[in-house]
This record gives sequence, C-alpha cells and structure tokens, in this order.
Amino acid sequence: MQPSGRSLFPKARVDALSDGIFAFAMTLLVLDIRLPDDLPLTSAADLTAHLVSLSHQMLTYVISFFVLGAFWRSGIEIRPSSETVDRHTVRLALLFLFFVTTVPFSSGLVGRYGGLAPAVVVYAGNMTMLAVLTIAIRYLDVEPRRRSLRSAAGGVLPLFIATAILSVLISLVAPGQGMYAYLLNAL
Amino acid sequence: MQPSGRSLFPKARVDALSDGIFAFAMTLLVLDIRLPDDLPLTSAADLTAHLVSLSHQMLTYVISFFVLGAFWRSGIEIRPSSETVDRHTVRLALLFLFFVTTVPFSSGLVGRYGGLAPAVVVYAGNMTMLAVLTIAIRYLDVEPRRRSLRSAAGGVLPLFIATAILSVLISLVAPGQGMYAYLLNAL
Amino acid sequence: MQPSGRSLFPKARVDALSDGIFAFAMTLLVLDIRLPDDLPLTSAADLTAHLVSLSHQMLTYVISFFVLGAFWRSGIEIRPSSETVDRHTVRLALLFLFFVTTVPFSSGLVGRYGGLAPAVVVYAGNMTMLAVLTIAIRYLDVEPRRRSLRSAAGGVLPLFIATAILSVLISLVAPGQGMYAYLLNAL
Amino acid sequence: MQPSGRSLFPKARVDALSDGIFAFAMTLLVLDIRLPDDLPLTSAADLTAHLVSLSHQMLTYVISFFVLGAFWRSGIEIRPSSETVDRHTVRLALLFLFFVTTVPFSSGLVGRYGGLAPAVVVYAGNMTMLAVLTIAIRYLDVEPRRRSLRSAAGGVLPLFIATAILSVLISLVAPGQGMYAYLLNAL
Repeated sequence: MQPSGRSLFPKARVDALSDGIFAFAMTLLVLDIRLPDDLPLTSAADLTAHLVSLSHQMLTYVISFFVLGAFWRSGIEIRPSSETVDRHTVRLALLFLFFVTTVPFSSGLVGRYGGLAPAVVVYAGNMTMLAVLTIAIRYLDVEPRRRSLRSAAGGVLPLFIATAILSVLISLVAPGQGMYAYLLNAL
Repeated sequence: MQPSGRSLFPKARVDALSDGIFAFAMTLLVLDIRLPDDLPLTSAADLTAHLVSLSHQMLTYVISFFVLGAFWRSGIEIRPSSETVDRHTVRLALLFLFFVTTVPFSSGLVGRYGGLAPAVVVYAGNMTMLAVLTIAIRYLDVEPRRRSLRSAAGGVLPLFIATAILSVLISLVAPGQGMYAYLLNAL
Repeated sequence: MQPSGRSLFPKARVDALSDGIFAFAMTLLVLDIRLPDDLPLTSAADLTAHLVSLSHQMLTYVISFFVLGAFWRSGIEIRPSSETVDRHTVRLALLFLFFVTTVPFSSGLVGRYGGLAPAVVVYAGNMTMLAVLTIAIRYLDVEPRRRSLRSAAGGVLPLFIATAILSVLISLVAPGQGMYAYLLNAL
Repeated sequence: MQPSGRSLFPKARVDALSDGIFAFAMTLLVLDIRLPDDLPLTSAADLTAHLVSLSHQMLTYVISFFVLGAFWRSGIEIRPSSETVDRHTVRLALLFLFFVTTVPFSSGLVGRYGGLAPAVVVYAGNMTMLAVLTIAIRYLDVEPRRRSLRSAAGGVLPLFIATAILSVLISLVAPGQGMYAYLLNAL
C-alpha cells in the first residue's frame, strides 16, 4: 500500500482522522472509571465510599484527558503550513496517532495498578513517545532551511518528558505517588 | 505544551473535536442499557420483564442524550464570531468537553444507583458544570465591551441549574424520583 | 437551553455530528460479536464451532450496518437545500440521531434473543422510528408549498416499514426467523 | 431507501463517514489489550509478567492499526477526482467500511486465538476483502476509458493479499506464527 513516488495527501483529511482519534481516545478514557457491574450497593454511604475509592483512577483520567488535550491543541496551532503533506508526514502522523490510541490502555493500567512501577513506566513511555513524535512532526513541518529543534520543542515538551521521567523515579521511591509528577505541567 | 504568547487556533478544528466528542459521548450512553451477558432468558415474558426493569436506565439515557444534544445545539447557534480563537478559549473548550466525556459515567451511575443520593449529586454536579461552562464560554465569545451575563445565560441555563439542584433535593426526600426534575426542561 | 426566537444553526455542524454518530454507531455494532472472555478454546474445531454459533449475531450485524448505511446515504443525497437550519429541524435531527444511537442496543438484543418476540418488536420499533423520522425530515426539508409526502417517503421507506412489521409477524409464527424479513430490502 | 435514478452524493460526506469509521475502528483495537478486571496483581514482577503475556495481542494490535492506517492513507491520496459520487460508489464505499468495522473483531480473534487456524483464516479473509475492495474502488474512481487494473492495484495490494494467504499457510504448519507474515508489508 506504499504509494509510489511523490504522492500527496490533503492535510484536511489527516486533520479529520486526527480529530476523530483524539475525540474517541479522550472519551474512551471514561470507560475505566466504572463501578463493577455486580456491586450490590444499598446505602448512600456505601456508594460514596466506592466513589472515593475511584479517586486515583479519576486523577489519572483528568491527567490523561488534559495531556491529550494539550497535545491536540499544540497540533492545531495556526502556523504557516502547506495544504498538502507528503507520505513521510502521513506515516509520522499515523505513528503519533498510534500512541494516542494507546493512551486509554496505559492510562487504565496506571489507574488500576498505579502502585506498581511497571504501570508507571508504561505510562511514562507512552507520554514520552507522544512528546518526541510531536517534536519530530513540528520540526519537519517547516521548510528545511528554517528548521529549529528549539522551536519545535517549544520549551514545554522537554519539561513534559522530564516530568514523565520524574514520575518513574517517584514511583520507585513512593509507590502510588508517581502520577502527581504530571501535575507539575499544570503550573 | 502551553503555546507561548499570542497563539491562535482555528475555530473549525475546535468545532471538529467538539462534534466528535459529543457524537461519541452521546453514543456511548447506550452501552449502559445492557442486559447482563450471562442472562439465561428463555421466554418472551422473561425478556419483557427484563426490558421493563431497564426503564429507569432508559429514562436516564433519554435525559442525558437530549441534555447533551441541547448543550451541543446551544454551542453551534450562529452568532457573529471570529474564525480563530485564543488559547484561553481553547482551554475553556477542553474543560467543557471534559465534562461532556464524564456524562456517560455520571449517567451510568445515576442509571444504576438512582435511588441513592450520591449518584444524583454526582449527576447534578456534572450538569451544573456543563451549564456554568457554557455560560462562561458564551460570555467570553463576544468582544469585551458587549459582554452580558444575562445574554450568555440565555434565560434557560439558570433554569437548568435550578432543576439540577431540585433533583438533589427530591432525591433526599423521595429516593429514585430525582431524575424526574430534569423533565421540567422539556416543558 | 432552548434558543429564543429565530435562531439559525449551520447545517454543516448538524452534518458533522450526524456523520460522527453514524460512524460510531456503525462501528459499535461489532462489539456484540464477541466470544466470551473466559472461553477455553483449545482446538481449531472448537473455535470454528463457536464462530458458527455467532452466525445469527453476524447476520443481525450485517443487516444493522447496511440499514444504518442506507439511512445515512439517504440523508446525504444532494438536494437543493439551505446552508442553515432552524431549531425545529435541529430538534428533529437530534431525535433521529437518538434512534441511531439505540441501534447498537436493539441490534444486540435481537442478536442474542432473536428467538423471542419482544426482541424482534424492539428492533422493528427502532427501525420504524428511523424510517418515520427520515420521512418527516425529508418532508420538512423543502419549502412549504413544494412539500410532498410521496416524494419524502421515496417509495422505499414504506416498504422498509412493511418489512419491519413483517419481521414481527414472522417471529410470532416462526421464532428466530424474523430477521430474514429485512433481507427483502436488499432485493 | 435506494435513491431512484441518477442520485448524486457529496464526496466530502463519504469522506467524513470514512474518516470517522477509521478513527473509531483504529481506536477500538486498543480495547482488546486489557488485563482482566479481577486480576489480583500485587507485585511489580506479577504485572510485568502479565504485560509480557499480552505481547502477541500487542503485535496484532500494531499490525491491525498500521494496516488500517495504510488503507486509509491509500484512500486519501490526491488524485484527479470528482466532488460527487453516484450511488454505486457509495454502496461500494459502505461495503468497504463494513470490512473496516469488522477489523476490531477479527483482530481481537487472532489476538486471543492466534494459535488456531480458523482465527488466522478469518483475519486473512478480512484483510483480503479490504484489499480487493480497495482495488475495485480505485478502479472505478477513474473515467471508464482510462481504467487500469494494474494502476488500481498499485503493485502493493497484490503483495498484501499474498501475505494474507501466506499467513494462513504458515499457521497450518507453525501455529501461532502466522501473523509474522504481515510484517513483510513493512519492508
């Protein structure tokens, strides 16, 4: 299916797939905040206790939603840009979207097993891939002689990668506290 | 990922994400109206009885669908508007969309535990956040000197918040009847 | 949230929500064709037998997908049309989309309990609502003095409603065979 | 619902439904990579072991995502094309999209039962249908006298069908290894 030679693709269609995948991934996240189907809750106090027990998953959900939102936002910022893209850019966009679709998985993993280091590592890896690919796409999206890694990284993406690494380090020392590192990005 | 300075974003892309998230959230609601997988139903009477037992969840589904529909509709109404938005507006739109994605959760909660006050409180809180953020977005969407809280609230949003509060009060007195308050909005 | 007076809404946004809901509902249908999670299948013959046992659900899936596809197609047909719609049309469109989102539920119901009449009745009711609302929307979409019920019904929608009624009658006589009535529409 | 005579449909709407269905199908794939809800994991080693046990499902996910991505990409390539399509093309597009929505099912099947030949056959059949319908759509999308099967197949689609057949042959000889055949397309 590799198109031969100098195929061109309309950026509007890449944007449409991207908006769809972001919208779906951001909405899918909510499916992880569920009370088990067979929970026999009969009092208000029971239900409140179970809702409180979901607080870690809710924090993860909030973080994942707004991190995805921030990546989406950085992708739609108005920049001088062509209306068509070549096949290398489409490939890179698909690779980026792949790591968008894995967020519901890694977010659900860290929501349920946030006290175990491997879950935090998988989530941090997912976040790092999103940040690195965003830098790559922003770097390649300008004409060759005006490319600048500093401009593509935009100051905040390296900070974001640093908080991902920090979350892993924290979770090794204080299990279950790693996710709080991502809140640094909200400052 | 905070874009620096005076970043601009195309409103068309914000609209596209918004339409996608509304479409998915409205469709996801149906997943809560499910007969359990392992239900051994063998007669028509059994199946009818189980379908009738889903009536409270169906009422919740209908309310949530049309409430989301009404919020979506109020967002697409044609007004004099710019084709680009700044980063504060995008942030506010994402915050609003966050509370759209939580509707399948809070709707499912009240569908299953509608007889318990905390479920009604969570749902009412979700509805109130949607209404307050809609007012805020409509308020900020006009140029500063023409802003009017009265115009942004549009007369019906305060009424909607009132019915959310009413639903909580009703559910304290008559458990399981709170959701009927929202039907006032259909008048 | 009822917009006051002569609010106008862009048809393009109604179309976007509609395409999103159709796309999601059509894709959600596949979730009903699932082998149970805890199925210990160890031989090819076992797996083939279980796949064959899904054939009724697959038939339902195929019917539901192409019925939704046909409704979507009849909605996008190019006709002389305005670029804006009023609030009554948006309401009607939302009501129509509501019955699109219930298709995964009623389709799953008939896929699992196709031998029981209530499931076939629910599905037929859903199909009939889609057909009636399509006729209503097509009727109201032309200027008042050129409206024609015959033209709105298009010849095939009454036939479709007839097959829905036929499916109920068949399922009363020959349980489990009702869905075959819908295949008449493929002729 | 068959539109009579020479109905025309806007290609933009077909594209919108297509982008939506691809976006959801590609995101739905992730739902198959799930740890069971009731898994009592208490140590990092446990969690790592379970994540490793998901590696076959992850490989299937990666393959399915990028195969769908490649089909989507081949559909958006810029070619001289009309802005409207006739009803035969819409039908063919819906048939193609049907086999896009079945990918989450066949991909989940081969992810769980990749060691059993029927699962590999179903997946290969799904892939072959996607390839054949892509060739048909590309063939019919140009004006009659310029049609060329060779150009529609594009060199890579026959190769893709060959790898699907190869995957079935491999799975008969070496159960569980069939999916590796698809990696040939990445070369």
